Amino acid sequence: MPPAVITIAELAAHAGETVTLRGWVYNWRKKGKLRFIILRDGFGYLQCVVFEPEVDPAVWEAAVALTQESSVVVTGTLVADERAPGGYELKVTGIETIQVAPEYPIGKKDHGPDFLLNHRHLWLRSRRQHAIMRVRSELSQAIRDFFYSRSYTLIDSPILTPAAAEGTSSLFETDYFGEAKAYLSQSGQLYLEPAAAALGKVYCFGPTFRAEKSKTRRHLTEFWMVEPEVAWLRFDGLLDLCEEFLAEIVARVIDRCRVDLERLERDTTKLEPATRRPYPRIDYGDAIVKLQSLGQQIQFGGDFGGDDETVLAEQYDRPVMVTRYPAQVKAFYMQLDPADPIRALAVDVLAPEGYGEIIGGSERSDSLEHLERQIAAHGLPREAYEWYLDVRKYGSFPHSGFGMGIERCVAWLCGVPHLRETSPFPRLINRLYP
Amino acid sequence: MPPAVITIAELAAHAGETVTLRGWVYNWRKKGKLRFIILRDGFGYLQCVVFEPEVDPAVWEAAVALTQESSVVVTGTLVADERAPGGYELKVTGIETIQVAPEYPIGKKDHGPDFLLNHRHLWLRSRRQHAIMRVRSELSQAIRDFFYSRSYTLIDSPILTPAAAEGTSSLFETDYFGEAKAYLSQSGQLYLEPAAAALGKVYCFGPTFRAEKSKTRRHLTEFWMVEPEVAWLRFDGLLDLCEEFLAEIVARVIDRCRVDLERLERDTTKLEPATRRPYPRIDYGDAIVKLQSLGQQIQFGGDFGGDDETVLAEQYDRPVMVTRYPAQVKAFYMQLDPADPIRALAVDVLAPEGYGEIIGGSERSDSLEHLERQIAAHGLPREAYEWYLDVRKYGSFPHSGFGMGIERCVAWLCGVPHLRETSPFPRLINRLYP
Repeated sequence: MPPAVITIAELAAHAGETVTLRGWVYNWRKKGKLRFIILRDGFGYLQCVVFEPEVDPAVWEAAVALTQESSVVVTGTLVADERAPGGYELKVTGIETIQVAPEYPIGKKDHGPDFLLNHRHLWLRSRRQHAIMRVRSELSQAIRDFFYSRSYTLIDSPILTPAAAEGTSSLFETDYFGEAKAYLSQSGQLYLEPAAAALGKVYCFGPTFRAEKSKTRRHLTEFWMVEPEVAWLRFDGLLDLCEEFLAEIVARVIDRCRVDLERLERDTTKLEPATRRPYPRIDYGDAIVKLQSLGQQIQFGGDFGGDDETVLAEQYDRPVMVTRYPAQVKAFYMQLDPADPIRALAVDVLAPEGYGEIIGGSERSDSLEHLERQIAAHGLPREAYEWYLDVRKYGSFPHSGFGMGIERCVAWLCGVPHLRETSPFPRLINRLYP
Repeated sequence: MPPAVITIAELAAHAGETVTLRGWVYNWRKKGKLRFIILRDGFGYLQCVVFEPEVDPAVWEAAVALTQESSVVVTGTLVADERAPGGYELKVTGIETIQVAPEYPIGKKDHGPDFLLNHRHLWLRSRRQHAIMRVRSELSQAIRDFFYSRSYTLIDSPILTPAAAEGTSSLFETDYFGEAKAYLSQSGQLYLEPAAAALGKVYCFGPTFRAEKSKTRRHLTEFWMVEPEVAWLRFDGLLDLCEEFLAEIVARVIDRCRVDLERLERDTTKLEPATRRPYPRIDYGDAIVKLQSLGQQIQFGGDFGGDDETVLAEQYDRPVMVTRYPAQVKAFYMQLDPADPIRALAVDVLAPEGYGEIIGGSERSDSLEHLERQIAAHGLPREAYEWYLDVRKYGSFPHSGFGMGIERCVAWLCGVPHLRETSPFPRLINRLYP
């Protein structure tokens, strides 16, 4: 019987056995009659040791010929060894070389971000990018499980839309069969509101697009956003939902991505407070006073800059929820605060450590008249919103929701400063390749 | 203490109690001093009975004023009643009217598809559309759980791409900051292949776009596609994966969407064989002979038409896997069959009952030279595929994958003939609204 073919995720179940692994040479070094090959297979890394006196000459020859990122099938005895990285080592008995790779473009030296992004398809093979992608994947599943386990219905909102939620200046536009212009969606929210009337609790989770000409480390032109929308949920319930959501998904990533977070050298003690509720909640007005006392220039009525967000968030060990912003700095569809109608029932959740806003949400206006006035005041074409207004015409109901761009959340969880590393193939203002 | 606020999904736990429900009037009828109100809340339907002699005059007045799709908060005693649809009935004691709706546009009479699609935001409230959306949501989660539980890493492939996987004629195009043209992705596959080299087993699951001028019931311009890509997986393993995948997700939907499938009057005995492996596998050549014997005009070398697919699939009680198509009718990146190099190691999975192709997959070519020739032969710009070719340059490896558009799968599971009902807000050649 040939040896079991396993992955590096399955080592523990096969200690002492002869096994076969398939993967790529991540790294190698020589020491006399020894070759140490670090094999990576997408699931982990394993040190494979080839000792010339103990192997067939053809195996030794194959080992010596291997270069970085050559593809191989390796057979050997799996030995538990405390000194080995990961706790196991493979005593190689056989090597089947699939392909010897030519000199690999990504070496040990520091490459600039442009070089690495040009080679994103290869850069993903590095330990750090691998770990970030695993965190992103776990986070995405955690988000879906959160909503699935609470009986939300997934509603995939359309990407091709006839009108814009928040103006057309930052929209990608495409011709739609010579008949119309279509715009790439910036948010599924307007579509989720009628869906919430049909299905009670709904969410969407898909790519969204912003043709903003911003070159900051906190913007991508294409990113994935999750947006729940809940019928009968009022503002206070929305704040609870944001908190419950973040606490659960952060706890899950810390729990299931330990190896990846270690590889990223992420100090998870900085993340752990975010798994504990409650989060601090601060009224926008109080936040302004606090920011002014901390030396910020912001005035009541203004929206926060990135710097304001950082300074405010640094006051807390976990995400902080800033509530009841002035209506004028927020989107047209928000419910006004009955206690202070210049304010909207809006919340922004700011991540700690300078990672900025990760969630924005609000109670939505349930008043047809208010929305009609808002649409006129914003100069939006009424006929494009007729269907949206129908939500307030046929059985209007209180409802709330939020949106979270997952790349910012991944950046925070992984402790990476630039969003370009949080997306498998990031799209930036000057970057559409590969 | 006020009564518990519950949803119609939670009735069983509250029989005999006084409860409050929030929702919309799905339907109502009168009978003397009785008003029967069918309440829907997004989770189900509940008959609420108002009996004039037993309620406050204001409650009776409120009940009488309610119209279809008015929003209400209803309180009453929940009574188990075998005769009631769903097994429970609410003896109403209180009604809080949130909004009385004006005449609802969607009535009992038959509306044409255009009318219904123009009112898609309201049409979603109907029993049938509600059920389809629940099936779609369950299917999507089943797909994610399938891959998550098997240690696949989710890789969100980009939507904005610089080049096309399969030619540019059916692509939506957008200007990218005045610097370049970007095309909306038709498939994430080319991006998944390098990701498989980095992470072993990967999948993407997101919207894809086809600007095809086809007006058939089996085409949408925007649809969601799931695509796994697996390193070291050869063609036979791919066939097993397709089968394992379909069998598991179909079984899960049958199991967890019983109520929805009943509401759709779907005969699930027609679906059940698909939960049992193996599926029939038929060589393309044998399929041609069989089709000819069944009176079809198709010749060896041609691709199947929708009619051929239907006729062939009708021979089986479960999905049938057609293998090893002529390379010339398939995409450029496929591995040729070593036993017969005019064939590609490609598989199409055809659903029963005339629902046609739901999965297309293949082993991918691992030969740099073959792909270079293919790219030249198809007149594709080599420089746009440089990064893709790198997958064969730096540690080439056997790998396979498939794609499934979920709308076709939803149509099959639900037994709906037209894809327009399988998407929350479908996009067709003549349909971009709402």
